Amino acid sequence: MRGTERFSLNQATVRQWSLPDLVAGCAAAGVRHVGLWREPVREYGPAAVARLVRAAGLSVSSLCRGGFLTAPDPAGRAAALADNRAAIEEAAAVGTDTLVLVCGGLPPGSRDLAGARERVADALAALVPHAAGCGVRLAVEPLHPVFAADRCVVSTLGQALALAERFPAEWVGIVVDTYHLWWDDTVAEGLARAGEGGRIAAFQLADWVTPLPEGVLLGRGQLGDGSVDLRWFRERVEAAGYTGPTEAEIFSPALWARDGAQVLAETLERYRAHVL
Amino acid sequence: MRGTERFSLNQATVRQWSLPDLVAGCAAAGVRHVGLWREPVREYGPAAVARLVRAAGLSVSSLCRGGFLTAPDPAGRAAALADNRAAIEEAAAVGTDTLVLVCGGLPPGSRDLAGARERVADALAALVPHAAGCGVRLAVEPLHPVFAADRCVVSTLGQALALAERFPAEWVGIVVDTYHLWWDDTVAEGLARAGEGGRIAAFQLADWVTPLPEGVLLGRGQLGDGSVDLRWFRERVEAAGYTGPTEAEIFSPALWARDGAQVLAETLERYRAHVL
Repeated sequence: MRGTERFSLNQATVRQWSLPDLVAGCAAAGVRHVGLWREPVREYGPAAVARLVRAAGLSVSSLCRGGFLTAPDPAGRAAALADNRAAIEEAAAVGTDTLVLVCGGLPPGSRDLAGARERVADALAALVPHAAGCGVRLAVEPLHPVFAADRCVVSTLGQALALAERFPAEWVGIVVDTYHLWWDDTVAEGLARAGEGGRIAAFQLADWVTPLPEGVLLGRGQLGDGSVDLRWFRERVEAAGYTGPTEAEIFSPALWARDGAQVLAETLERYRAHVL
Repeated sequence: MRGTERFSLNQATVRQWSLPDLVAGCAAAGVRHVGLWREPVREYGPAAVARLVRAAGLSVSSLCRGGFLTAPDPAGRAAALADNRAAIEEAAAVGTDTLVLVCGGLPPGSRDLAGARERVADALAALVPHAAGCGVRLAVEPLHPVFAADRCVVSTLGQALALAERFPAEWVGIVVDTYHLWWDDTVAEGLARAGEGGRIAAFQLADWVTPLPEGVLLGRGQLGDGSVDLRWFRERVEAAGYTGPTEAEIFSPALWARDGAQVLAETLERYRAHVL
């Protein structure tokens, strides 16, 4: 479909679809890229997924997600590193060079945000050699500050860049997700800085809608339904030199309750109207 | 009670209490300051509230709240300015020099955060003369970015300071509320800058607890129950030269369901354990 060559459907947007449904649905709609999640990929088998995707002429824009790197105890840290090494291998096996990392929240009972952020940096240092060995780039995703306690202590693009910039740009980048960054008046300078450093590893779209549901996580809005100037982000990300896929990643029970093909068609329509 | 001379109970923490209950309960507990809200104050009558509070030997640390200054249409803007002039007068009548402003969210259908923030600045310019005439300082409260769309486009201490600094420090300051600012790794420099400029008009406490309830607003945590390093904030605010009252302001249906005196006793105990 014209103009949507870079559009990628993150499978979290259409959880009602199995992997074969996803691949067939995207191929039928002319979508060229998919963003995948580890759980369904592991269930289906990464090599089988890679074959399935390739056979349909699709590429995998990213694998979601590694991370959760803030455990302070040696056992928790070792388990997190092992899991992330596995995620790196799964990314390579499924045929993507981008592993999205959600860095993890505060450990139970802790109030030490700065310490948790430093542990993320330590973990990245431990993971970069394996990532490089597998040809996979770690993509640090800043999550909206509403998730700082329980999901991701990296809350702004500036923080994500400060982490990433400690490592070679080839192996550690950042994720620009409109849902997480739209409120930040320093995001324009962050995007420019990310572009200069070649740090933009992924670009994801969702809109901000209110009221938020209990637990917040599953309250993302369809493109165009909310407060985010999506086109502004797309233009800035392009101006920053990013030429990769643009993933629609919308966690929304309302979308999951509908027919997957209908959701994809609507998302493409919204993409053309609000992003392009 | 020793060490709690600066403690102030914001009445939003004990909505189960009427104004006379609040005043009597605070006096009985040795609390010297109360933070009030416009709705109950208007219902009771500002002058009557002032007498009630004074008779009990209390001071009013702040009035919550004016604001909602982002309407783009002339009628909406005029109505907001009129309402804020009334709020300024109510603050003066009730005997406080601090009017907390929650600046307002995006107008319906708008995605122009920068424009909305600029309208807040315009409105402040329009309100400052009346504030100065009434001896009331406008206290711009940055709200957590989770509220950027629907409640307050001023999301960080840095943004609040940038707004306030356009006006004399005597008439426009900022509110430091731990609930809204705890996640921000630039808040230490913001507090220092606020202190240098004499901009800290109020200091409010609540803890961040998860999961958040639907709509987010009423999910604040009792002091010590959450992720915020409250003592760190108290120390930084003091180091920045703030010597005024410290308000506990906790919107929590769980607290409202309990006996008010019990909630106040618990809050004081938590204040001593986690803030002092």
